[in-house]
Amino acid sequence: MSAPFHVFPDTAAFGAALARAARRRTVPVAVHRFPDGESLVRVRTPVGRHVVLVRALADPNLRLVETLLAADALRRAGARRVTLVAPYLSYMRQDAVFHPGEPVSQRVVGRLLGDAFDGVLTVEAHLHRVRRLAEVIPGRSRSLSAAPALAAWLRRRGRDWLIVGPDEESAPWVRAIARGAGSRFVVGRKVRHGDRAVSVEVSGEVRGARAVVVDDIASSGATITAAARALRAAGVRSVDAIVSHAIFAAGAEARIRAAGVRRLLSCDTLPHRTNAIGVAALVAAALPRSI
Amino acid sequence: MSAPFHVFPDTAAFGAALARAARRRTVPVAVHRFPDGESLVRVRTPVGRHVVLVRALADPNLRLVETLLAADALRRAGARRVTLVAPYLSYMRQDAVFHPGEPVSQRVVGRLLGDAFDGVLTVEAHLHRVRRLAEVIPGRSRSLSAAPALAAWLRRRGRDWLIVGPDEESAPWVRAIARGAGSRFVVGRKVRHGDRAVSVEVSGEVRGARAVVVDDIASSGATITAAARALRAAGVRSVDAIVSHAIFAAGAEARIRAAGVRRLLSCDTLPHRTNAIGVAALVAAALPRSI
Repeated sequence: MSAPFHVFPDTAAFGAALARAARRRTVPVAVHRFPDGESLVRVRTPVGRHVVLVRALADPNLRLVETLLAADALRRAGARRVTLVAPYLSYMRQDAVFHPGEPVSQRVVGRLLGDAFDGVLTVEAHLHRVRRLAEVIPGRSRSLSAAPALAAWLRRRGRDWLIVGPDEESAPWVRAIARGAGSRFVVGRKVRHGDRAVSVEVSGEVRGARAVVVDDIASSGATITAAARALRAAGVRSVDAIVSHAIFAAGAEARIRAAGVRRLLSCDTLPHRTNAIGVAALVAAALPRSI
Repeated sequence: MSAPFHVFPDTAAFGAALARAARRRTVPVAVHRFPDGESLVRVRTPVGRHVVLVRALADPNLRLVETLLAADALRRAGARRVTLVAPYLSYMRQDAVFHPGEPVSQRVVGRLLGDAFDGVLTVEAHLHRVRRLAEVIPGRSRSLSAAPALAAWLRRRGRDWLIVGPDEESAPWVRAIARGAGSRFVVGRKVRHGDRAVSVEVSGEVRGARAVVVDDIASSGATITAAARALRAAGVRSVDAIVSHAIFAAGAEARIRAAGVRRLLSCDTLPHRTNAIGVAALVAAALPRSI
């Protein structure tokens, strides 16, 4: 149990925070990319019997393959059990055949990870049609809620927030944040017209409120932008925004700020200058049950 | 057996040539890339019971994941058997743990493909430690030799070639090309000093010869460059070069031409302006035994 955590370079900051919280050391996974686009990973040997590998799965096609290669490397080096800590897990939203001819990408990726790892621990996995991550990734897999971390951050800054979820799907999560923060909440009604075209309606008593929009991902920024516009039109005093995973496509941050969002913050599951809310302690606390 | 071939856009030219040779139609696989880097593929429905999917696996991390997603889409749409024709197959060179802590990437990728497909048909898979592709990719998997296509191309242009293989590993392949072309051959001695640093020694009667260097891949171009320099120093009349797979990293072509290579040609397994030798007919002829 004292084996170091194996950490990919692109997840070094989170890996270091996780190791501090779990009182472990870290060793880096070396990644070499050949001119033809193939990757060679190399793990530090010797490895322990129960190994934790740390990597956030943004830029997922590249990182999925490299992460599967690392699992193979760890097992060949003697690991009997390998747990992946992926503070961000991709491909969880394509969880059904929405149009004929589509795959269920969530299940494809889940099976790849389930075959390679004994369990996957993540944060806010964006599960809708299933309740437990283990249904998607066989093994000791769990998705942790970031709600306690968001709530604690907000509570330290007052109790007069209006927590705003962009759509009804987010209601349970937003309610948990609001309860923990001792503030009230409201959820909007979101209509998606395309990858980047979204509208959000917000109803209820919002005039004069100190609003904070919370969402799990802000890829294009369209959802937060639409929510912020609706809130400002409804007369709120200020709009802040917090996302669990700082996946900002090109132009997303600028779009969000242009909509009048005062502070744009994120959890540290993906390295980004908006990182303000650490979730490593939360993951470290859950780790003993996963490995 | 009359179902169309499902072809990824980046393999459209080879897919069309294969379909012509096999007297089939093609339908495109639609690929959408979201702002966060996830891919959604969509296959044309309805699909047949026995389906052929065509995609070359260059840029392998991206394409591997998308190709696995397409296999899932085809099966969900009703395909009972799915064969992948991958005229170029990546990750075949990391076929052992060369240094402690490395994976055997070849086996990882082979297992992914074997789980997703009933068989994989490819060309010149760069197998060294195994003889048959089915040992790497379980199922009806075969790697075809491009030697007949190269030999036919050369034979149509005379019988006075000196076919040059860059290293001893290439001897069986070079011998097959030379026999088919009715020309003589020689193999060099290659020493690799790094990704891009290679030296090649060529001995034997080469003065005044019309040399053609043959290799399976020219990623950095270092091998062909070194061979061409050695041949020119040894007094050959001219140097041409033919590669099976036109994987040219940035600067590779310029490097090869600067070494005095007159004509640089490739098979059409990957689309490139050097494509001159078609292998689709060869693959089409092997297809009935694979599906």
